[in-house]
Amino acid sequence: MKLEVDIERLASELDQLANFSEAEPPAVTRIVYSQADQQARLWLRNLCDESGLSTRVDALGNLFARWDVSGHSTGAVGTGSHIDAIPHSGRYDGTVGVLGGLEAIRTLKQSGFKPLRPIELLAFISEEPTRFGIGCLGSRMLCGSLKADQASALKDKQGDSLPAIREAAGFTGALEDVQLPPGYYNAFVELHIEQGPLLEREHIALGVVEGIAAPAALRVHLKGSGGHAGAVLMPQRRDAFLGAAELSLAVEAAALKSGSPDTVGTVGLCDIYPGAANSIPSAVKMEIDVRDVSLTHRDAAVESILQSARQICEKRKLEIETSILNADAPCKSGPAIVEALKQACEAENKTYKMMISRAYHDSLFMARIAPVAMLFIPCRNGYSHRPDEYASRQDIANGVAVLARTLASLAS
Amino acid sequence: MKLEVDIERLASELDQLANFSEAEPPAVTRIVYSQADQQARLWLRNLCDESGLSTRVDALGNLFARWDVSGHSTGAVGTGSHIDAIPHSGRYDGTVGVLGGLEAIRTLKQSGFKPLRPIELLAFISEEPTRFGIGCLGSRMLCGSLKADQASALKDKQGDSLPAIREAAGFTGALEDVQLPPGYYNAFVELHIEQGPLLEREHIALGVVEGIAAPAALRVHLKGSGGHAGAVLMPQRRDAFLGAAELSLAVEAAALKSGSPDTVGTVGLCDIYPGAANSIPSAVKMEIDVRDVSLTHRDAAVESILQSARQICEKRKLEIETSILNADAPCKSGPAIVEALKQACEAENKTYKMMISRAYHDSLFMARIAPVAMLFIPCRNGYSHRPDEYASRQDIANGVAVLARTLASLAS
Repeated sequence: MKLEVDIERLASELDQLANFSEAEPPAVTRIVYSQADQQARLWLRNLCDESGLSTRVDALGNLFARWDVSGHSTGAVGTGSHIDAIPHSGRYDGTVGVLGGLEAIRTLKQSGFKPLRPIELLAFISEEPTRFGIGCLGSRMLCGSLKADQASALKDKQGDSLPAIREAAGFTGALEDVQLPPGYYNAFVELHIEQGPLLEREHIALGVVEGIAAPAALRVHLKGSGGHAGAVLMPQRRDAFLGAAELSLAVEAAALKSGSPDTVGTVGLCDIYPGAANSIPSAVKMEIDVRDVSLTHRDAAVESILQSARQICEKRKLEIETSILNADAPCKSGPAIVEALKQACEAENKTYKMMISRAYHDSLFMARIAPVAMLFIPCRNGYSHRPDEYASRQDIANGVAVLARTLASLAS
Repeated sequence: MKLEVDIERLASELDQLANFSEAEPPAVTRIVYSQADQQARLWLRNLCDESGLSTRVDALGNLFARWDVSGHSTGAVGTGSHIDAIPHSGRYDGTVGVLGGLEAIRTLKQSGFKPLRPIELLAFISEEPTRFGIGCLGSRMLCGSLKADQASALKDKQGDSLPAIREAAGFTGALEDVQLPPGYYNAFVELHIEQGPLLEREHIALGVVEGIAAPAALRVHLKGSGGHAGAVLMPQRRDAFLGAAELSLAVEAAALKSGSPDTVGTVGLCDIYPGAANSIPSAVKMEIDVRDVSLTHRDAAVESILQSARQICEKRKLEIETSILNADAPCKSGPAIVEALKQACEAENKTYKMMISRAYHDSLFMARIAPVAMLFIPCRNGYSHRPDEYASRQDIANGVAVLARTLASLAS
């Protein structure tokens, strides 16, 4: 089978998608259900329709685009990723797996290949935790791990509820219907940029992902006592931000001393209340992200952080509330898909290595209802979630060709 | 002279003013030139007009309300304060000096007193640094310490310039005309809540302020390297927020070890960029506020903080930009006004103590063009810049009566 990926078309589509953004280029900001996100998904659905796929959108906004020459309603081969983007990030995270997945299907159609199973592109909604504080919202509901009542209780920072927001965005169906029926997918493969430096550093074309690391997210609220920055002397203070500063350094220390080189801990959000130059911070809301490929090491780091938090708050006389937003288990890839990916790399004559994904993906949740695997392409300097995120055309084309061949193999 | 302060009227006006706010009561948020601030100042001007005062507003928005029975254009006795309020603060900071100043003038008028000098109420614009990062904007321009070209270069966080904002708010005159002519005021007295616990703790009715402490404000930008919170291992990171966390703890340490119990250091603002739970902070903008009644101790603390910042950034491979937003000198009160305040306390049979103001006031800048002094009233627990800021009616009435008597003495 000869596959001809139209990389010019795909690169142009990636550029077009990057224009649906609230940030100044090259930065991309596309928060779920924002105007930019809504317009991007309309554009994407239109593109899928034009490619001859049957599209549908579920009650949450997940977009499905199916190539079905068999008439089967279940047992499809799925591929896809997400198009939402955190503030001031780049143009390749997620989008390569969506538009690259579409290009893989178009390439197969154009080659004359006839699948025995349906092949379906899936653009997950709300993979990034930006708006609701929880990542992979779409895939969590598709696999049934997040129920309709739990999703309905989610709110964004403005206090608006997920049901109100999605309805305003035009999604009015029952959230109970989002969960996919058993056997809907026979296999799911996600193409993605590596978001790490290994492939580039080792000059390897592709990464075949054996497993996805286990992320945990904590939300911590610290409460102290405010006051005028000029008037309250130091010994009388209960400054919530100084507690947050100590805790952030404790997060770093817990990751560094976990005993595993893979443990990472990050404080990416820390909002100060009231937030004025001449006011002592009376409260702080922070989020802590801890990951490891080993569940044991990750959970030990989380426990160490919670213990530090209690000690800091006791010392500084702060009140503390902690909640675990998510603490998901890692997943292993399906052996048959891994095998298909390796054979496709060989058929395309591309180097590859077996890898672990340290970043978090919708495939982690799809693994609960179907065998999954992921395919990584290099990204410059390992950069991601920043405006200078970059993947070369050649690397993208390699990924799409191997993905197409893998989908063909799984659908045969 | 018998003075009858109408505390019911004044308390009602303080309540009305608190309703011009963008926060849920009891919190008050009244950012300069916001709709709430604009409406509050229109309401205030109307109140001054109804009280028979001649009002004018300058090109920046400073409001003057004059009681003139003498026909002199210079040599007035001034009183006043500000009505802008930082986010989620209280209803007495500044407002007691404005509405209390108005009530003092009304009380004098009602008593039949005839001033030889004009008595003028001044409601300064933008005392709080919330919007433009610099406090006492109005008084800085009135005294000529901030020039029109420097003011024109100021921007708020959205990047909007002061000239554009004030013009949109309806102030279109030449900024060059804001500076007051020499001799405009013969004396200036500001009534204010203490914003500290001393008067309440010692059961003393009033504080006669001998001097105002010297504040310094630093803006620090830290730049590191962003990336995905899952994908970049700890040793490869250059996390700007961890640098800010260390620096914030260094600010606390510098204040504690300065050798003066009066040194205070505060990080009240720390904005993380990009600010997402799963992104490594690539940059941070923070503001540091350092104060002491001793210029030597304050400057030593600032130097120690800057040295810590350099060491932290070297260790963490962060870029740093620091700018000193202001580092003003302390001021001493005018002896004649202090004497008038003491005599007024005695005439009203109120206890008083001599004090230093640790907080920052417009009087610090008015001291550059006229003798000034301040009069403090107690506030509950010393709380200020928070929703539960509170001063009792009796304490406010005491302050207004002593202020009125002092204005009468200075205008005779």
